[in-house]
Amino acid sequence: MTGLDDNWFTEIYAEESIAFSLRIRNKLHEETTPYQTISIYETETFGNLMAIDGCVMLSGRDNFLYHEMMAHPVLFTHRNPKRVAIIGGGDCGTLQEVLRHPDIEEVWQAEIDERVTRLSETWFPELCTANTDPRANFFFGDGIKWVQDTDPGYFDIIIVDSTDPVGPAEGLFTRDFYRDCFMALGESGLLVQQTESPLMDESKSIIRKAHEDMRGAGYEHTKTLLFPQPVYPTGWWSCTLAGKTTPPEYFREADAQEKPFPTRYYTADVHAAAMALPPFLQEMIGEDHPLGGEG
Amino acid sequence: MTGLDDNWFTEIYAEESIAFSLRIRNKLHEETTPYQTISIYETETFGNLMAIDGCVMLSGRDNFLYHEMMAHPVLFTHRNPKRVAIIGGGDCGTLQEVLRHPDIEEVWQAEIDERVTRLSETWFPELCTANTDPRANFFFGDGIKWVQDTDPGYFDIIIVDSTDPVGPAEGLFTRDFYRDCFMALGESGLLVQQTESPLMDESKSIIRKAHEDMRGAGYEHTKTLLFPQPVYPTGWWSCTLAGKTTPPEYFREADAQEKPFPTRYYTADVHAAAMALPPFLQEMIGEDHPLGGEG
Repeated sequence: MTGLDDNWFTEIYAEESIAFSLRIRNKLHEETTPYQTISIYETETFGNLMAIDGCVMLSGRDNFLYHEMMAHPVLFTHRNPKRVAIIGGGDCGTLQEVLRHPDIEEVWQAEIDERVTRLSETWFPELCTANTDPRANFFFGDGIKWVQDTDPGYFDIIIVDSTDPVGPAEGLFTRDFYRDCFMALGESGLLVQQTESPLMDESKSIIRKAHEDMRGAGYEHTKTLLFPQPVYPTGWWSCTLAGKTTPPEYFREADAQEKPFPTRYYTADVHAAAMALPPFLQEMIGEDHPLGGEG
Repeated sequence: MTGLDDNWFTEIYAEESIAFSLRIRNKLHEETTPYQTISIYETETFGNLMAIDGCVMLSGRDNFLYHEMMAHPVLFTHRNPKRVAIIGGGDCGTLQEVLRHPDIEEVWQAEIDERVTRLSETWFPELCTANTDPRANFFFGDGIKWVQDTDPGYFDIIIVDSTDPVGPAEGLFTRDFYRDCFMALGESGLLVQQTESPLMDESKSIIRKAHEDMRGAGYEHTKTLLFPQPVYPTGWWSCTLAGKTTPPEYFREADAQEKPFPTRYYTADVHAAAMALPPFLQEMIGEDHPLGGEG
């Protein structure tokens, strides 16, 4: 019935009983690290593809949507960001977007699996152009422990660019981790985390739980932003921002309009648009989080 | 490699070498009409599914995204809409959304294949609640000829809710058809058409061609709106509005905020957000259409 032969890579998203497939030309590489199995394919139309444990991480064609939305909204929300930490993000695409901001002085990428970064340098060199930037710093190891060891108040922004909340990334979707980040952030610090698809069953909603746990960890403000991401399940994705004292509803719109670098998806208008949450999602997030809704 | 057995329905979107699959419980119905083969499945998590010639038309779970966005933006753009025509739209979901507007006096649904409507009444009754509304009128036959036979200036709004631009729907994506609609619309009339995924190769872009052909047919203003639609290829979809004299950038925002009916996706904020086009799409649509971009 499927008509898909061995020339297709398929990710089955079992919880929602859906699957997404890409036609491939070649498997370029595969290796099993202490953490996971990383596969690289050449696809017909989506450029190179990285999968981890069978789940699509990124394609050359559409990763700009995700990487731009993980970096620029939070950076244009903080009043004056200088120091940024990325937890995960081993493909270096988020790092590259962060370093497009000239005022950023120091970025740390804390990725558990160095092989993700090395394979990205080989197969996604277009994402790694900022890796030699003197402001870029790399830590390979446990991101949770690394955040705990950070000097209190050191970072302006922490970006949690992780895999799904199973396996190595599970601990990144917890109140304890959000509290560790809270300690590592300055007074006006902001956290942003990828929070999966908004079209999930309410009972398993990662978005709702993220709001609850972020508030529970002490952040005054939380806000979910939406964006398309065709290679991820349902094709519709989200990130959730948490501000210790800074409300993510208000961003430096004039600065975003005048940004000194090109983007393919992000603009000030797209940033504002990403905050418009549909009623079904406002309900899912819950009335007890007024700033998670339209407010 | 795919791991998908016979319990999955798969749509292969050959042009982009991608596929989307839904796990099914049963095939509920299948028939071949003079126009196409219509299949109805019960899926695990997306409710009932209608496919035509192997392409997903709608699922019970996520059709609200599409139907709300095909109806409400154009209705809240026209100053005072009374008469609406729907070309295609046989599942009656768009008709239902249109009839939520109390000021609408008359709606015609011109669908080529009556069996689509009859099967929707059986398998998607939740989309057909307005079919007995006295304002609802049904024509089953060739929508192109039906528009040509319409009294000039009769309709305020024409909604082209069609399948992909191949087979029966091909003639709905042409300058001639847009011109026929132009004649059937009043002075401040508006046309809206579903225009497929924004993440297509530039060379085959249906969105770009729609802008060109709509302008060529005499409409002063064109504007593309974006929205998610998980069961369609790439999960990201669009509709393009064309105003004879009415610019789609300006809608009745206060009326949309005060709308007297509930929605799950559409709000005034979501409407405004849907008009924020990313730079890559502005470029694809072309500089010669300033109102197709951010303007």
